[in-house]
Amino acid sequence: MGKRYNIAIVGATGMVGAEFIKVLEERKFPIKNIRLLASGRSKGKALKFCGKNCEVQELGKDSFKDIDIALFSAGAGISKEFAPIAVKAGAIVVDNSSAFRMDPKVPLVVPEVNPGALKKHKGIIANPNCSTIQMVVALKPIHNAARIKRIVVATYQSASGWGKEAVDQLWQETEEAVRLKASASANRQPLLRLKGSKIKRVLPAQIAFNVIPHIDAFLPNKYTKEEMKMVDETRKIMDDDIKITATCVRVPVVVSHAESVNIETEKKLTREEATEILRKSPGIEVIDDISNEKYPLPIDATGRDATYVGRIREDESIENGLNLWIVSDNLRKGAALNAVQIAELLIK
Amino acid sequence: MGKRYNIAIVGATGMVGAEFIKVLEERKFPIKNIRLLASGRSKGKALKFCGKNCEVQELGKDSFKDIDIALFSAGAGISKEFAPIAVKAGAIVVDNSSAFRMDPKVPLVVPEVNPGALKKHKGIIANPNCSTIQMVVALKPIHNAARIKRIVVATYQSASGWGKEAVDQLWQETEEAVRLKASASANRQPLLRLKGSKIKRVLPAQIAFNVIPHIDAFLPNKYTKEEMKMVDETRKIMDDDIKITATCVRVPVVVSHAESVNIETEKKLTREEATEILRKSPGIEVIDDISNEKYPLPIDATGRDATYVGRIREDESIENGLNLWIVSDNLRKGAALNAVQIAELLIK
Repeated sequence: MGKRYNIAIVGATGMVGAEFIKVLEERKFPIKNIRLLASGRSKGKALKFCGKNCEVQELGKDSFKDIDIALFSAGAGISKEFAPIAVKAGAIVVDNSSAFRMDPKVPLVVPEVNPGALKKHKGIIANPNCSTIQMVVALKPIHNAARIKRIVVATYQSASGWGKEAVDQLWQETEEAVRLKASASANRQPLLRLKGSKIKRVLPAQIAFNVIPHIDAFLPNKYTKEEMKMVDETRKIMDDDIKITATCVRVPVVVSHAESVNIETEKKLTREEATEILRKSPGIEVIDDISNEKYPLPIDATGRDATYVGRIREDESIENGLNLWIVSDNLRKGAALNAVQIAELLIK
Repeated sequence: MGKRYNIAIVGATGMVGAEFIKVLEERKFPIKNIRLLASGRSKGKALKFCGKNCEVQELGKDSFKDIDIALFSAGAGISKEFAPIAVKAGAIVVDNSSAFRMDPKVPLVVPEVNPGALKKHKGIIANPNCSTIQMVVALKPIHNAARIKRIVVATYQSASGWGKEAVDQLWQETEEAVRLKASASANRQPLLRLKGSKIKRVLPAQIAFNVIPHIDAFLPNKYTKEEMKMVDETRKIMDDDIKITATCVRVPVVVSHAESVNIETEKKLTREEATEILRKSPGIEVIDDISNEKYPLPIDATGRDATYVGRIREDESIENGLNLWIVSDNLRKGAALNAVQIAELLIK
């Protein structure tokens, strides 16, 4: 039997935390002991790990004694405070927050795309943003074959990308709309805008039966942080010469993000060539059988590992362009799975 | 008192039909008599028009006697068969279907964009596709100021764009999901994919808690008809030199379509210049106050006349580019309102 490791999960009670546990179990990660860490509110809560009860401990300065690898997913503030403490205690940190992603000393890694970047780590490795990960998994093989010059992306991002409370908001608003509909006349208006309800709203607007072109805070250039993460992280991971513009939109979906991606390449790729390249590439499943109405859908991607690519089309508006439709589970490949894959590379 | 007209509505019992009635009432269109036409199934059904009951008649060859203007919205098949009959009977047809849009002898008109095209009509005027109308209303003033060279658009289209039965599918699936959730454990999986239910599915997949990159039939170039309508109609209405590529996606929204639109222009426009141009243009309302989290939303656009534009940003990936977020009620400006505006031009 090979070496086994002490693993800590910071943010164990969140949606990504739950997915960390599932992914570590499924992939039989060689774990000696697991330490589940969260805020004081969750202290003492019991979570299952491999069939055994495991008590959640309060995150503190002494949480990382004897830990080999700490998987963080508790927001940038927690990462900034505790990742250096974990590193000092001897752990390697794989951080799912945005805290260190653009730090030039911190590798930003997607194992299928830039595993080599991992070697230069100094204790912290950053996991990219969910919407970035699935895009670079799909685009790296195309870039290798034809050099991508420019990307125009519009996203369709699920509520779980914000976290549990946004999923709760979606469900409660949906239930409220169904209640209102049951008691309403044929007039459709009151069903669409929910007013004065007691629902706790964490997203910037109603998400049920709506789409919101606003994810994360606005920046001086009028883009959101989410949009600029896609720009900056993609360039750091793939190639600094690529030009990118993004529009990020929240949609009333529970899990899995979709992206409409338009690319311009230096070299011409036909639809068939691009499809063949994608089919042979790691982490990707092509679903593009339009005669049978098969294409990637969020409900189908959820709970799965792959990045799904479909609707592959030559862009007739430029010489060398392609349109792609990319879908992946934002809690898995977009977060927990990618981080665990990084941990697997670390122990290899 | 000015002249009053005999108006026929073909497809009076559909979602656009109901909106035709509302818009004609609201705008006090000078009507002498209204004739509501539909298939045999709806014969005898009573609909309100200006407070009076009006019986639906079965569409037939003799339906257009004495009619001045016939508003059609009952699908391309019905339009192909009955629009020539209506014209022969002396009516002018404003057709909301795709039947005649790309016919070089038929004007394709958005009153704010190309009212002059109307003059050349030979009895039939085509109303563009909903997703095209809101885009050209927003882009024409930009094109006038800076010449648009290329458009990359991704849409977020509501269920009502398909019709009543798609809205029913969305509601029934949503209700089913809410029922399942109430009876389910904490496991999120069964809530996402609804299986084996008795819901009548008219869209190509589950739409509740999902997004579907497939609207209308697929064409040999792998694009959908909906996508190519945006390409071909926009060029016919605005300028044949504009290059366009589109990805059309159905989202779980009841009414109003949203579009993420990226444009490249010949002349540079700053964000401020573009905003100013849009503010002064007909049919457009700019909602772009991000510091107060104000931007166009489908739930806010529904039931209103304007095309709403927000998230106006300079595209940093090219010299002269802009990103826009365009939202409008697909049943109103996207269909009934635009057709009635054409009728208003006709009688002016």
